[in-house]
Amino acid sequence: MSSSVIRSIAAIDARFPLPEGTGSDAMHTSPVYAMALTHLSTEAGPTGVGLALTLNDGNRLVCEAIRILARPLLGQPIEVIMAKFGEVARGMADDPALRWLGPHKGVVHLALASVSNACWDLWAKSRGVPLWKLLLDLKDEALVAALDLSYLEDVLTHDEAVNLLRNERPAREARESILSTGYPSYDTSIGWMAYDDGKVRELALSAMGRGFQAFKLKVGSESEDRDTRRATMLREIAGDSGILMFDANQRWNAPEALRRCRTLASFKPLWIEEPTHPDDIHAHVKIAQAIAPVHIAAGEHIPNRVMFKNYFLYGGMHFVQADCTRLAGVSEFLAVSLMARKFRLPIVPHVGDMGQIHQHLVLFNHVALNHEVCLLEHIPHLREHFVFPAQVNGGVYRLPKEPGASTDMRCTCEGR
Amino acid sequence: MSSSVIRSIAAIDARFPLPEGTGSDAMHTSPVYAMALTHLSTEAGPTGVGLALTLNDGNRLVCEAIRILARPLLGQPIEVIMAKFGEVARGMADDPALRWLGPHKGVVHLALASVSNACWDLWAKSRGVPLWKLLLDLKDEALVAALDLSYLEDVLTHDEAVNLLRNERPAREARESILSTGYPSYDTSIGWMAYDDGKVRELALSAMGRGFQAFKLKVGSESEDRDTRRATMLREIAGDSGILMFDANQRWNAPEALRRCRTLASFKPLWIEEPTHPDDIHAHVKIAQAIAPVHIAAGEHIPNRVMFKNYFLYGGMHFVQADCTRLAGVSEFLAVSLMARKFRLPIVPHVGDMGQIHQHLVLFNHVALNHEVCLLEHIPHLREHFVFPAQVNGGVYRLPKEPGASTDMRCTCEGR
Repeated sequence: MSSSVIRSIAAIDARFPLPEGTGSDAMHTSPVYAMALTHLSTEAGPTGVGLALTLNDGNRLVCEAIRILARPLLGQPIEVIMAKFGEVARGMADDPALRWLGPHKGVVHLALASVSNACWDLWAKSRGVPLWKLLLDLKDEALVAALDLSYLEDVLTHDEAVNLLRNERPAREARESILSTGYPSYDTSIGWMAYDDGKVRELALSAMGRGFQAFKLKVGSESEDRDTRRATMLREIAGDSGILMFDANQRWNAPEALRRCRTLASFKPLWIEEPTHPDDIHAHVKIAQAIAPVHIAAGEHIPNRVMFKNYFLYGGMHFVQADCTRLAGVSEFLAVSLMARKFRLPIVPHVGDMGQIHQHLVLFNHVALNHEVCLLEHIPHLREHFVFPAQVNGGVYRLPKEPGASTDMRCTCEGR
Repeated sequence: MSSSVIRSIAAIDARFPLPEGTGSDAMHTSPVYAMALTHLSTEAGPTGVGLALTLNDGNRLVCEAIRILARPLLGQPIEVIMAKFGEVARGMADDPALRWLGPHKGVVHLALASVSNACWDLWAKSRGVPLWKLLLDLKDEALVAALDLSYLEDVLTHDEAVNLLRNERPAREARESILSTGYPSYDTSIGWMAYDDGKVRELALSAMGRGFQAFKLKVGSESEDRDTRRATMLREIAGDSGILMFDANQRWNAPEALRRCRTLASFKPLWIEEPTHPDDIHAHVKIAQAIAPVHIAAGEHIPNRVMFKNYFLYGGMHFVQADCTRLAGVSEFLAVSLMARKFRLPIVPHVGDMGQIHQHLVLFNHVALNHEVCLLEHIPHLREHFVFPAQVNGGVYRLPKEPGASTDMRCTCEGR
């Protein structure tokens, strides 16, 4: 274990154009994936790399915010930072110059995600272990000290968080079998909005051949018939035992969402995702009630733990798609995971990180928190850009073994 | 009426340091007020000036976002833009490069506020009328066409909005008396957090001498006794008929807010403001139920119409402190005003604009929408920086008569 001191901080605006149609949904017709990267460099030791996903030009705003936000970390040893990261993260989130711009949402919160993720990566690298192992090896008190649980006190106090971890320790060992078996992924890359039927069919069949059994289809086409046709085709390909998810990417207003979700529910998807605006808890509650037993999934645009708490209290979602590149990094993701455990809601992360960090977090959630559902989205389009891309074989996420959070990227020269 | 074409767009980062203690609250100990200004210049005609309030260094992020966001306006006549500003604003809010950074919150939404406000100012100036008159003179359909009502359809459709305006037309004339009488303001500048008891007493007495009858006190001191002592003193000075408001600026978590609001309710304030995190609708509902008939006020950090809709549906606030420099400008403020009217909730704006724009909007809300409560916050610290500062005499906001939205500032050279 070294005590790596942060000697310089850089924000890098990396852009990744995609092949035509790839990444398209009902709201984003031709996205350019962009990563707002934080580099925390140490003198002789490792570099901590954090990331947050954005699209296109907006990325430079996040990079600019990283430069302002991360300043307090300069000159500090990573062990000192992480020993009380809950406080450190809260201090950054409540920076007097930046809090007004949120609080805890938008550009500055995405910047905090990138910075926090870099801290966790550096911590794991400096201890020479993968993130999942760092997390599992931490004492309960040490883990909770790395989380900012402020504004959650009505549903999760510090002591409850510690006790929740403690109470799940005895049966940890049985759940550690997941480290050797891995856990299933589902394929989002077969059903982008702009793909024609032939391409969806071809990709779905190919994915099934490679062992995938769960597929996400983008919905929210201008024409409802197109959604129905694509859903019918995919259900035929996947069969009754195949798992489908539908994703509307916030396309519909509340009345339209209610109507179209009722129709789509007849295809028996595991969930319908982001039927309407992510701030509209009330609408999600109404839709959830209307389409049960089909479930609502949401999270990729839910900005912070306080909003998740409200979703949980009001019953606005079932599948919790927390994303450590939308929330304030690994820490806030874990805070949401603890809450979700208390509410007995499954976490199936949205992968703004392309699954790189979340592959670790799903393992932690299962082994340490006894989250039963182990499932993770798979989006392979940026794999060549990662130094250690997530290994998904036979539709299964395999154990990452390299030190850190798997966030090192090859290409960091595009953009500025 | 000219058809001013926008020939250039600039974002200006204007900073305004304040005297020690001024502007301080439970979360911001020594704020520097900053305005993210949008300038929309026309060839020979007026310049539209929009503003959004931020604090300190965060302001440059908003200015950078303004530069990206406002690009579609270049080369367009303001009459063309405003004839369908609802669509235009929605287009900017859903810019594919920026939507991911929200949606509809944080830095990009503050930028949209500034840009939208500049459009409204330019529109009023180009027609040679003050904003309140422009708004009152618009036909119902034309006004609603300038609003983005998307994601509100379950509580307010386009037709409902038009009808609401139409139904209030017959009695408009009676309510127009407000144009000559003005309406009361309340004084926030007597009770900043860092002011000692002597200063609060002196300022409150002086304000009473000038005709003020309503005063806001910052609460959320480290020591509860200090809050109680200041509240006791201010109630004594103001007397039983004086109106007090308490403002905690999000300081407390939910359980602490519940406890401290119960204590403060005994001082019979008109409202308790921002008791906890602005995203925590559920906590606001619980507190509102606990302290009735004392009311909850909130809004200065509620980012968009969708969140307000949820607050209204769940009953999380009574006094609606919408702010056209936090919401996406005048348009989204009016969308919230329409909804609030339907829910019969009073709007008492938070003045991120120092009251300059809101002095117009309160007039419109009363005359056109029949909002009964007419009351506006008064914060005088930047008045010297405005070309036409709001006239508050005898504690009363007087009718602004100059063309535009009263947003022209003298000092735009600080910052960059």
